[in-house]
Amino acid sequence: MVRTELAENGVSLYPGNAVTRVEKKDATLRVDCEEMSLEGEMVLVSIGVRPNSRIAEKAGIALGPEKAIAVDRSLLTSHKNIYAAGDCADAYHVVTGEKTWIPLALRANRGGWAVADHVMGKKVTLQGIAGTAVFKVFGLQVAGTGLNGEEAVNAGFDPAEVTIKGRSRAHAHPGSCTIAVNMVGDRQTGRLLGVQMVGQEGVAHRINAPAVALHAGMTVEAFGQCDLAYAPPFSPVWDPMLTAANQLLKKL
Amino acid sequence: MVRTELAENGVSLYPGNAVTRVEKKDATLRVDCEEMSLEGEMVLVSIGVRPNSRIAEKAGIALGPEKAIAVDRSLLTSHKNIYAAGDCADAYHVVTGEKTWIPLALRANRGGWAVADHVMGKKVTLQGIAGTAVFKVFGLQVAGTGLNGEEAVNAGFDPAEVTIKGRSRAHAHPGSCTIAVNMVGDRQTGRLLGVQMVGQEGVAHRINAPAVALHAGMTVEAFGQCDLAYAPPFSPVWDPMLTAANQLLKKL
Repeated sequence: MVRTELAENGVSLYPGNAVTRVEKKDATLRVDCEEMSLEGEMVLVSIGVRPNSRIAEKAGIALGPEKAIAVDRSLLTSHKNIYAAGDCADAYHVVTGEKTWIPLALRANRGGWAVADHVMGKKVTLQGIAGTAVFKVFGLQVAGTGLNGEEAVNAGFDPAEVTIKGRSRAHAHPGSCTIAVNMVGDRQTGRLLGVQMVGQEGVAHRINAPAVALHAGMTVEAFGQCDLAYAPPFSPVWDPMLTAANQLLKKL
Repeated sequence: MVRTELAENGVSLYPGNAVTRVEKKDATLRVDCEEMSLEGEMVLVSIGVRPNSRIAEKAGIALGPEKAIAVDRSLLTSHKNIYAAGDCADAYHVVTGEKTWIPLALRANRGGWAVADHVMGKKVTLQGIAGTAVFKVFGLQVAGTGLNGEEAVNAGFDPAEVTIKGRSRAHAHPGSCTIAVNMVGDRQTGRLLGVQMVGQEGVAHRINAPAVALHAGMTVEAFGQCDLAYAPPFSPVWDPMLTAANQLLKKL
């Protein structure tokens, strides 16, 4: 769905085709890739981020995943007088219980508050993160929380997974669009492990419901029983997330 | 906010002014109220609903709140061979743990599935309802889940309550609107008891996050720590619901 949205908006993708060289050529820029060349007026380099932890590393402070600064649930580093908060610090993942590094604004901001509270004498213990994220690509909303199937396997779970397509609004309500929901659960415990969603509307805020469920350690069955809001302009009677839970339960 | 939206769309409200008589007068209808008269081409009577439980009552089956048919968590009535599902049946409220009657489509539908499963030999136990509901009034979305302050008092809680105003999108993002969030928590246990929200966008699906929290029996503090989705077109870094939780925590 994301690829189609990009293509329909004139964006060509060349995945798995590494850039080898960028060269100025008259008024344009030539980008040489492994299997092709492209020309353009502007080259925007978007190759991900890394935690800026050099000062901590030099000071002998312990690092965590991806070399982010390792902190406990109170944002304390391995040095008893030094806290770290922001995109440079790691966090506990509420699904795996393990350390992870997913640098997003809410955690960075919340970490800052927690350090301030802590330094001022108010003990704060942060639960951790579910990795909840959303982005907009042209007219499409793309969101996720927790683990996808591959991440669940890598984290040592025995996951089952379903992808369903539902509608963003009630049957026959004008303006309705397709929402695709991917849901992952653990075969051993029945626990909800993660949800991913794509659609033209109603995705960005829907994802917060399973995010809360992950914080609560809910099973897929318990999530599927939740009393979610229904009104024709906003959802089918069975929200697509509940339909996904019902289908996933059959596999679990 | 709802009153303003109605007024701006040409709807006049006369609350607390009971209708005493409706009479045909030439081509129009005259509606006599206690303190005034109105004229119009159409009268739409909207005075609420009652459970249709007469047949059950005549059969000696126990009734619950509002004379809805009393059912257990498996939708079984007081007669061991008779189930009831739909708007006619009562339900357990996940916040109070008590019986309630809030006739909404998802519970009615879910109850029907549960009875079918049960009759076919698959034991089903429903958690109950949070009373999650949403409606649209012109351009405004109005949603709620769980108890408001008054309902919390009536249910025997000692509630604290805050109302905050936040933005539907990130600071300075175009198209952002005000979202008002009312949040209710229990002073004794810190538990989240309910959330009510109003805004022109982003309310209908936001309400599902606290709905899940109510099913999980979360505290306001735990809900306030949830990793909700952030991206500028969809939310401030701190979602208005998180801001409400942070403010409510101070009162608790």
